[in-house]
Amino acid sequence: MNSQRPLILVSNDDGYASRGIHKLVTLMRTLGDVVMISTDEVMSAQSHSCTILHRIYVRLVRQEDGFEEYRCNGTPVDCVKLGYQKLMKRHPDLVVSGINHGMNASSTVVYSGTIGAVIEACMNGLNAIGFSLDSLDLDADFDHLDAAILEITKKVLKEGLPKGVCLNVNFPKRCEEPLKGIQVCRQAYCRWIEYFHEQFDEDGKLYYDLNGELVSDDIVPGTDLYAIRNNYVAVVPTCYDWTAHPCVETMKDYETINITL
Amino acid sequence: MNSQRPLILVSNDDGYASRGIHKLVTLMRTLGDVVMISTDEVMSAQSHSCTILHRIYVRLVRQEDGFEEYRCNGTPVDCVKLGYQKLMKRHPDLVVSGINHGMNASSTVVYSGTIGAVIEACMNGLNAIGFSLDSLDLDADFDHLDAAILEITKKVLKEGLPKGVCLNVNFPKRCEEPLKGIQVCRQAYCRWIEYFHEQFDEDGKLYYDLNGELVSDDIVPGTDLYAIRNNYVAVVPTCYDWTAHPCVETMKDYETINITL
Repeated sequence: MNSQRPLILVSNDDGYASRGIHKLVTLMRTLGDVVMISTDEVMSAQSHSCTILHRIYVRLVRQEDGFEEYRCNGTPVDCVKLGYQKLMKRHPDLVVSGINHGMNASSTVVYSGTIGAVIEACMNGLNAIGFSLDSLDLDADFDHLDAAILEITKKVLKEGLPKGVCLNVNFPKRCEEPLKGIQVCRQAYCRWIEYFHEQFDEDGKLYYDLNGELVSDDIVPGTDLYAIRNNYVAVVPTCYDWTAHPCVETMKDYETINITL
Repeated sequence: MNSQRPLILVSNDDGYASRGIHKLVTLMRTLGDVVMISTDEVMSAQSHSCTILHRIYVRLVRQEDGFEEYRCNGTPVDCVKLGYQKLMKRHPDLVVSGINHGMNASSTVVYSGTIGAVIEACMNGLNAIGFSLDSLDLDADFDHLDAAILEITKKVLKEGLPKGVCLNVNFPKRCEEPLKGIQVCRQAYCRWIEYFHEQFDEDGKLYYDLNGELVSDDIVPGTDLYAIRNNYVAVVPTCYDWTAHPCVETMKDYETINITL
């Protein structure tokens, strides 16, 4: 590792074998020294979970000039914690997560392991960006994203991000037109409508398979879902302060509740 | 189940055997009909994770007048999804989660399965409250919380909550003085400083045990950590829009990035 070059931690929630993380590593290696720390298993929908009840095993699987690759049996958040606290020689200049196979825009951020890793880095004062592509295809084509990923990353490396803020970047899937540009947006509101498929296992026991569909009545200009739908890159400045600030004032009447029996 | 009484879904992340959830069920049964849906395992630090890669098994373990108890092998978020979509006769009037053995205030909300359940309910338009006690003691005494839990819950049942907002309620642990009252607060900023204990298993393989300590330089009036430290009940109106709204304007220069190679 060369102390003159930026040091970049790369993680994801699709596991070490996904095309997305290898694409991201390839791009980041043109900008700095890279430590890739990914999970043994696919960790989709693992959100910000971390491992406090089990042992975490980590192994170095590759080491070459300017690059190290580790794998662990933990979650994406564990990867970040381990990376900057135990495995890396110094704090990274940047943490990037992805490229996720599947969109992490709008309210779906709450489920995302990709964004879990990004938020964890942000909480610890590190610059962090999540990259996700609106395609679940395991063979998805990421090549149309190269310039956007490199340029956004260079800007963050150069300027840093505001305290307590990370970036959630979502890309539309490749279409015939080139990407139209970048839009800085707010999260759209959405929710999943789930279908619990009732099925019976080998022993005749009922179980559920969870599937669902994203629904939103908030795909309006200024939102990430609107940008993606219109072939723009959606950049959402994202924070981990979940306080509904206006309500801190409007709900002051809760302070008048009598709490003695 | 009596259609005249409020219908309340109770979940948690400490599993079905915890004292906290049974205390909460007892209190909620004085206010309405209750469906308790909890996890087989302790799900602390499981955040907003949900089960999309495995089968979810659910079983009804108790049924009596105005009360049903289910257990499942999923996460707290799965419990809420299953509850209101599959197991309950109608949408609940309220979802409550807890009482958690351990504080879920400040930035630690991002890790919390208790709050994961609450946010999931909120995303689906349901009134939702999380209750947590600042004590990890499995035999913690919850009796000093009865009036506060009942009165906060009655107010939410009567008035509802603003759209997209749920409540995160944290209690100080019992001390000699009675609780001083309620403070409506913002989340304090904090982070965990982790200690990864390096240990060797039976086969001589290195593993890590994750432990940590909460640190905050933001324990100031108006925050939840300050309220709890001063023996107040901390009520934080909480949302799932993670957009750093001021930055949507201040970071517009990202839109000038050239993303063609």
